[in-house]
Amino acid sequence: MSECEADGHLREELLSSAQCFQGSFLKVLRDTVALPDGQAATREYVVHPGAVMVIPLLESTDRPARVVLERQFRYPVHSVMVEFPAGKLDAGESTLACAQRELAEETGYQATEWARAGVIHPVIAYSTEFIEVWFARGLKPGPRQLDSGEFLDVFDLPVSELLQWCLDGRVTDAKTMAGAFWLQHFTSGAWSPEWQSAR
Amino acid sequence: MSECEADGHLREELLSSAQCFQGSFLKVLRDTVALPDGQAATREYVVHPGAVMVIPLLESTDRPARVVLERQFRYPVHSVMVEFPAGKLDAGESTLACAQRELAEETGYQATEWARAGVIHPVIAYSTEFIEVWFARGLKPGPRQLDSGEFLDVFDLPVSELLQWCLDGRVTDAKTMAGAFWLQHFTSGAWSPEWQSAR
Repeated sequence: MSECEADGHLREELLSSAQCFQGSFLKVLRDTVALPDGQAATREYVVHPGAVMVIPLLESTDRPARVVLERQFRYPVHSVMVEFPAGKLDAGESTLACAQRELAEETGYQATEWARAGVIHPVIAYSTEFIEVWFARGLKPGPRQLDSGEFLDVFDLPVSELLQWCLDGRVTDAKTMAGAFWLQHFTSGAWSPEWQSAR
Repeated sequence: MSECEADGHLREELLSSAQCFQGSFLKVLRDTVALPDGQAATREYVVHPGAVMVIPLLESTDRPARVVLERQFRYPVHSVMVEFPAGKLDAGESTLACAQRELAEETGYQATEWARAGVIHPVIAYSTEFIEVWFARGLKPGPRQLDSGEFLDVFDLPVSELLQWCLDGRVTDAKTMAGAFWLQHFTSGAWSPEWQSAR
């Protein structure tokens, strides 16, 4: 039995779809679906182009590894949040090209090696958003190129301190905590991504 | 200098707010804000009541600890997702009462002990959503009480296997990965939440 067949008692099927909101930033669809028991139901959700997050590693032979982080005011939660660099995919852009662009624009760093950790889904109840997660190393500093109206601080922190911040509530951003999960397994040696040279 | 003063170069201030969409499920606000440099900008975001997630532990003296998980079709990402039990807060409901209700409704389990791990913010770019995370142990099985139109499978898994699934892409739900981060530090003994008896 294939995975699809095994999930037949859970899957919902599209009956009809309509755009019900187009703002200056958010687009919302409202679909009518058939539930597994044949009943109809409504699903409303944000349509998102997808995003990338970068875990930038500052490795050194004479001190423990550090990561580059940002502090940015996030209006919906009315707080300055600690998070890994991230940004939305441009149309037609590969996730690696987006990761390289966002890292350079927001932090000024360029990396010589990249490795894909995986994908995360931050809002499975009401958004199509996915975030591709890339590790970057061999970092060379350079000038930032922030968008007009973009304000954020860049800093770095030992990996062990970031893990502590995720445990004790100083970091609450879910994508950054998911990144910390991979990061911990990477620094402990329990897990290795596949590195490639930057193009 | 207080934290607020230190963040003055990052913070945005509300100028005006308007509801721009009210669907059957999603509500969107569009606020005009003053950026740190005085320019005006638009912020569109989903208003969410907040939610809880439960990490239900099946502890035993004769086998490694396991956790209770769900498989549920999530329409926006068109996939059956592996995730911890979770649900939205009812008006006026405490996060612990919500955690107890959601665990019982979705899985049938009642727990004798509860411990708060912390809070996560899944969508800081465009939603007010927060998720309070609770550990539950001393689980007693009972009948589920799913809402009409709710379809989900309940199963359990050794903690070590869940961690592997988060690393290798079988789990991509960000809230569940953030939960796995706390879970790993709990099972390794590196971090302990404060347990309380169920009321």
